[in-house]
Amino acid sequence: MSDQRVHAIWLNGALVDARGPHISVTDRGFQLGDGLFETARARRGVVIELDEHLERLYSGCAALKLNIGMLPDQLAEAIDELLAAEQLGGTGRDGSPIGDAAIRITVSRGDVERRGLLPPDFEEVVATVAIQAWPYAPTTGEARAITSSIRRDPASPLAGVKTTSRADYVYARLEAARAGAEEALFLTMDGNLSEASAANLFILRSDQLLTPPISAAILVGTTRTWLLAHAERLGLVPMEEEDLRPEDLLEADEAFLTASVAGIVPLVEVDRRPIGTGRAGPRTRALRAAREDWIDAMSMAALLPEPPD
Amino acid sequence: MSDQRVHAIWLNGALVDARGPHISVTDRGFQLGDGLFETARARRGVVIELDEHLERLYSGCAALKLNIGMLPDQLAEAIDELLAAEQLGGTGRDGSPIGDAAIRITVSRGDVERRGLLPPDFEEVVATVAIQAWPYAPTTGEARAITSSIRRDPASPLAGVKTTSRADYVYARLEAARAGAEEALFLTMDGNLSEASAANLFILRSDQLLTPPISAAILVGTTRTWLLAHAERLGLVPMEEEDLRPEDLLEADEAFLTASVAGIVPLVEVDRRPIGTGRAGPRTRALRAAREDWIDAMSMAALLPEPPD
Repeated sequence: MSDQRVHAIWLNGALVDARGPHISVTDRGFQLGDGLFETARARRGVVIELDEHLERLYSGCAALKLNIGMLPDQLAEAIDELLAAEQLGGTGRDGSPIGDAAIRITVSRGDVERRGLLPPDFEEVVATVAIQAWPYAPTTGEARAITSSIRRDPASPLAGVKTTSRADYVYARLEAARAGAEEALFLTMDGNLSEASAANLFILRSDQLLTPPISAAILVGTTRTWLLAHAERLGLVPMEEEDLRPEDLLEADEAFLTASVAGIVPLVEVDRRPIGTGRAGPRTRALRAAREDWIDAMSMAALLPEPPD
Repeated sequence: MSDQRVHAIWLNGALVDARGPHISVTDRGFQLGDGLFETARARRGVVIELDEHLERLYSGCAALKLNIGMLPDQLAEAIDELLAAEQLGGTGRDGSPIGDAAIRITVSRGDVERRGLLPPDFEEVVATVAIQAWPYAPTTGEARAITSSIRRDPASPLAGVKTTSRADYVYARLEAARAGAEEALFLTMDGNLSEASAANLFILRSDQLLTPPISAAILVGTTRTWLLAHAERLGLVPMEEEDLRPEDLLEADEAFLTASVAGIVPLVEVDRRPIGTGRAGPRTRALRAAREDWIDAMSMAALLPEPPD
């Protein structure tokens, strides 16, 4: 990771010293994991697929009846303010990006002194909104995964909601680390492949692109959506709506993980068994490059001057 | 609830203003719900079943590989310090308790600037430890419950760990509130009764005392343990190790919930259908009184001077 020390965060309307303290112990994010988050990549100061991230964030707020107290446009402006202050994601004299940034938006239900699980009424408390940014340099690493002992419930109303209640995911990553792996895969209660702790999972079977369906208790990542939309242009046949079993992964030609910040990462091993050749496959590498090119193009397009009427 | 404004909390070694701010946005409790908590009742400044609470807390720390950085005795002293400062739980001139207190210990993995799910190595970060206390007056209320759409997984390694990742429980309480109920019951994946969002569940079938087994993805509450140990003395036959189905609840003579702070609370309705007569049953009321008497006796016993050798 190229993450370095940051100097400021954006908190509830203003830039503040990243060192804190910032929030009270009574904040329901700290007390109960009663919050939501999003992570995104920025290049040249342009947040990639920002609308999709904000849409998921606001959907999560609705599911939890959480009063974010800000419009999406205000949140977008806040990110711009932070990136500018942190000098992240500008453009050098030759037009090349100075460096990418990883961004995290964290929204908790807010500071509530009253104890207990039940939140106050919607109007009575306004969310704590924090935005952090780190320098990020795209890497070309590979990932090995284990299968977590934690299972995901496709019937959960929060299955697709990115809450800050991540203890299950932290535990899964501890399991992975213990086995010398970088990621953990979850199965559903039915034993189907679901997702990784911080990424969606894809399998390549010849030129077929397969991924667990939304009904497999996944968080629908923006890179997943992009891949399914662009698969045919990239010479692949997308076959989304198929339940995948663990053996499908072991029998795949190639496999990879997708995440907003890390992009497309080859998955070369699961539970110490190789996937395909056990090394990053050629199709995965091509997809990774295509995604990075697209990110670059999108960031440049967003910076073009508005055309005259 | 009789909870009132508190004035101080104990945080990482010292009493501080309850108003905050106290912690950084980078605290993993806020970022990821990467923490644990306990709630307990104090009477006369004596924390009831403190050893059991601390044992569960330290077990949870071990499960999450979380470095609490304090000995149980130090934590007990910290609670005493807070209760004294808040003038909670003293004894009046006639020996009667001034008032009970509800206590919450919250332990997060601590402040970690690096982003990502994987925690630093055990030695590299020390937990954030916060203790809060509120005045508490025992009530004689009843509870109505709904069945949550969230299910619990008996196979989860965190099923018995009281993490601060409570979004599922918050969601369940929102479901309950929407239906005009005070509590939410969880079923396991297998459709068995598990527990309530903040309480264990008991059923009375004549003089038989039944409760979901530990294998039903429950948090083993101290009041549950106490009841099973004291059932025979209280004229009941404890029958713990039986899976219970939702229909067992509807066909029960009486039902109740148990929690450390609220004690024994009659459960009179589930999904708008009455349990037993639909009112607090006589056995439940007797058990509640017995538990409150025991709490009173334990608090007095703890304050007796040490016997001379």
